[in-house]
Amino acid sequence: MTVFPAGSAEGFSTGRRLAGDLDAADPLADLRDRFVCPEPGLIYLDGNSLGMLPRVTAQRIGEVVAEQWGGGLVRSWADWVSLPQRAGDLLGGVLLGAAPGQVVVTDSTTVNLYKLACAALHAQPGRRVIVTDDDNFPTDRYVLDGVAAQFGAELRIIHTDLDAGISPAAVAGAVGPDTALVSLSHVAYRSGALADMAGLTALVHEAGALVLWDLCHAAGAVPVGLDACHADLAVGCTYKYLNAGPGAPAFLYVRGDLRRRLRQPIQGWFGQRGQFEMGPVYDPLPTMARFTTGTPNILGTVAVEEGTRLLGEAGIQALRDKGILLTSYLIALADNWLAPLGCALATPRDPLRRGSHVSLRHPEAWRISQALIRAGVIADYRVPDRLRLGPAPIYTRFTDVWDALDLLRQIIENETYAGLPAEPAEVT
Amino acid sequence: MTVFPAGSAEGFSTGRRLAGDLDAADPLADLRDRFVCPEPGLIYLDGNSLGMLPRVTAQRIGEVVAEQWGGGLVRSWADWVSLPQRAGDLLGGVLLGAAPGQVVVTDSTTVNLYKLACAALHAQPGRRVIVTDDDNFPTDRYVLDGVAAQFGAELRIIHTDLDAGISPAAVAGAVGPDTALVSLSHVAYRSGALADMAGLTALVHEAGALVLWDLCHAAGAVPVGLDACHADLAVGCTYKYLNAGPGAPAFLYVRGDLRRRLRQPIQGWFGQRGQFEMGPVYDPLPTMARFTTGTPNILGTVAVEEGTRLLGEAGIQALRDKGILLTSYLIALADNWLAPLGCALATPRDPLRRGSHVSLRHPEAWRISQALIRAGVIADYRVPDRLRLGPAPIYTRFTDVWDALDLLRQIIENETYAGLPAEPAEVT
Repeated sequence: MTVFPAGSAEGFSTGRRLAGDLDAADPLADLRDRFVCPEPGLIYLDGNSLGMLPRVTAQRIGEVVAEQWGGGLVRSWADWVSLPQRAGDLLGGVLLGAAPGQVVVTDSTTVNLYKLACAALHAQPGRRVIVTDDDNFPTDRYVLDGVAAQFGAELRIIHTDLDAGISPAAVAGAVGPDTALVSLSHVAYRSGALADMAGLTALVHEAGALVLWDLCHAAGAVPVGLDACHADLAVGCTYKYLNAGPGAPAFLYVRGDLRRRLRQPIQGWFGQRGQFEMGPVYDPLPTMARFTTGTPNILGTVAVEEGTRLLGEAGIQALRDKGILLTSYLIALADNWLAPLGCALATPRDPLRRGSHVSLRHPEAWRISQALIRAGVIADYRVPDRLRLGPAPIYTRFTDVWDALDLLRQIIENETYAGLPAEPAEVT
Repeated sequence: MTVFPAGSAEGFSTGRRLAGDLDAADPLADLRDRFVCPEPGLIYLDGNSLGMLPRVTAQRIGEVVAEQWGGGLVRSWADWVSLPQRAGDLLGGVLLGAAPGQVVVTDSTTVNLYKLACAALHAQPGRRVIVTDDDNFPTDRYVLDGVAAQFGAELRIIHTDLDAGISPAAVAGAVGPDTALVSLSHVAYRSGALADMAGLTALVHEAGALVLWDLCHAAGAVPVGLDACHADLAVGCTYKYLNAGPGAPAFLYVRGDLRRRLRQPIQGWFGQRGQFEMGPVYDPLPTMARFTTGTPNILGTVAVEEGTRLLGEAGIQALRDKGILLTSYLIALADNWLAPLGCALATPRDPLRRGSHVSLRHPEAWRISQALIRAGVIADYRVPDRLRLGPAPIYTRFTDVWDALDLLRQIIENETYAGLPAEPAEVT
């Protein structure tokens, strides 16, 4: 599938007018006004790292702070106690293709990965291999390495092409009767490559193993069909495309028929049956609460609710359609302007095989990313030589993409970055 | 030590005038105005469960949402990335008697307990016993039970008197060369009994074991001298006396000389040296960041900063002095009014042996707690027969205590609770 002709083929206009026309025809264009926009002149292409602030979220947080905490005080727990599961059900229905009772908003992605990976190993004592890939997000690889050591298991790391994404053949070659868990990202954090969830899940199931999907760069960017793919487990964050703010709690999914079979290792009081009976023995609830731990973060969880509702207003398919157009337009401009300047596409060209961000490869990617920020375009750098551009569909305009690529072209053409430090200092 | 004469001894006035005089003489009285107070007529004695909202915190959260998230977007991580350690150092200095570099604000108390208990077991492979007491907070007991199972260790549970607190003799009898970890609460959640941190820590150290203190009901209520007591490990929440809001992140303490020896099991990217180099192998930072996991919750952490600063303005010793007066006054009124009605004190009478909340024992404690809430006094119930009253020193007035006890007397005297359900329904 191609949206715009590749290369400088005739019929594609690199003029800004096309961007304006695309904005005018965008059925989601009005949604941008529902966000707090940064200073005039700034172009934000980093919603894949931290999403913009929905106006309704600022208002809701203010209300929860003033009315529920300040006014209601401890009485508000009557409402709050079920919030992590309510928000999970909402998220599952609107964005993840998950029926109620399978998603809960809790802890961080890292902690959730740990809990579910431990639960998967614990449930399958005869299987002692965890499979992941070398392009999986760092926290996933580190967590799985720790879980493998804890269970005396082997962490088997397959190779993934940095531009093209997970190879089903490599997964097929790595799984077997020894495999307990395969943990993969649905959308790769660097290349944006979109994995075939249905196909890979089936492949893992053929080996009798469980699969754990990391949805951090997928949720809110592409339709996720957890139930339809018969996925087992999933985790994801809420501060990227879900726009729930810095460090808002993450979510986790456990397929309904697995729920009671699985037991996570952090035996906290919010997972306990009859929590306030405070009995002597840990007896996990049969609901998704069994995968929670301590007191839930309320301000973050209401932000997840608001962010999810806003995406739900747009509809995930409409967001996906716009995401395809935005990234295709970005790639077409890059093909025309940047490829001749030594910038290579490091993301699948087929829009059905990528998420909503695009990476470009250039030996000077670090300095270019810094020059771009100085020029008023926020994008980010990823090792070793990637410039990552994330036009989040809900608030990004086609003219933003045009303006950003135009500035990028000037920076590379004029080597504006030449005076900047050659290495990230203490990148944080 | 006694502040007010026990029983109905002469010299103690049960009149409301004394309460007014005590308020007038209270050097911290002005601090109440720094909080959002609930509706007029409501008396809040549950700051030991969820602290009131500091006005400055509502403002700061609004600013961080609008300016740092909404305006600064991903650029704000330059400030946020060190926030968990900055807030930890502040908390350590103001409230915990901990020099910088030993406290970090992260995750929940439950997750922190898990991480540190695992780290303690991991560091001492020759020792396979965890000791705790049967009155320790439920999440502590459940977590430790899970950790013991994970390490093939024994969870040895000593008995603690529900009213009097931890028995040093029982701890001494339970520890030995097999003991890896002793985990205790500094202030008991039910009785309010204050443990002798220095003495018990020394006793645990004599056995060559590590001690992990739960400070949830102590931090902000009593001076905690972690460094002076040579404590090893500690955890605590921030939504009680620290007034950081529902589900704000918890803290953890690791004594400086133990830091590099200990390794926690949730190997997340925020604990990684050179986080954005995204290297293949987990290599934990030498700082307290090694005890963090995923992306930190920013709104909750700034609330911890503000709550801590406010307590710092009062000074922990002044708060402690007022806490002793408030609880002593409460107990003196209870002795005079409620003891004759069948209400027994279930908290140490010596103020140096209790924290800042008081429990009363009555067979109808559940129904009385519900009648009390209907009468406009928020306190809480704890199994099996305890009414828990927490006059948080920073915002509670002596007249609040008088008014609450006066209403409580009327409720018990008139059996106002008689028509209420006899059992907590689904207490949450």
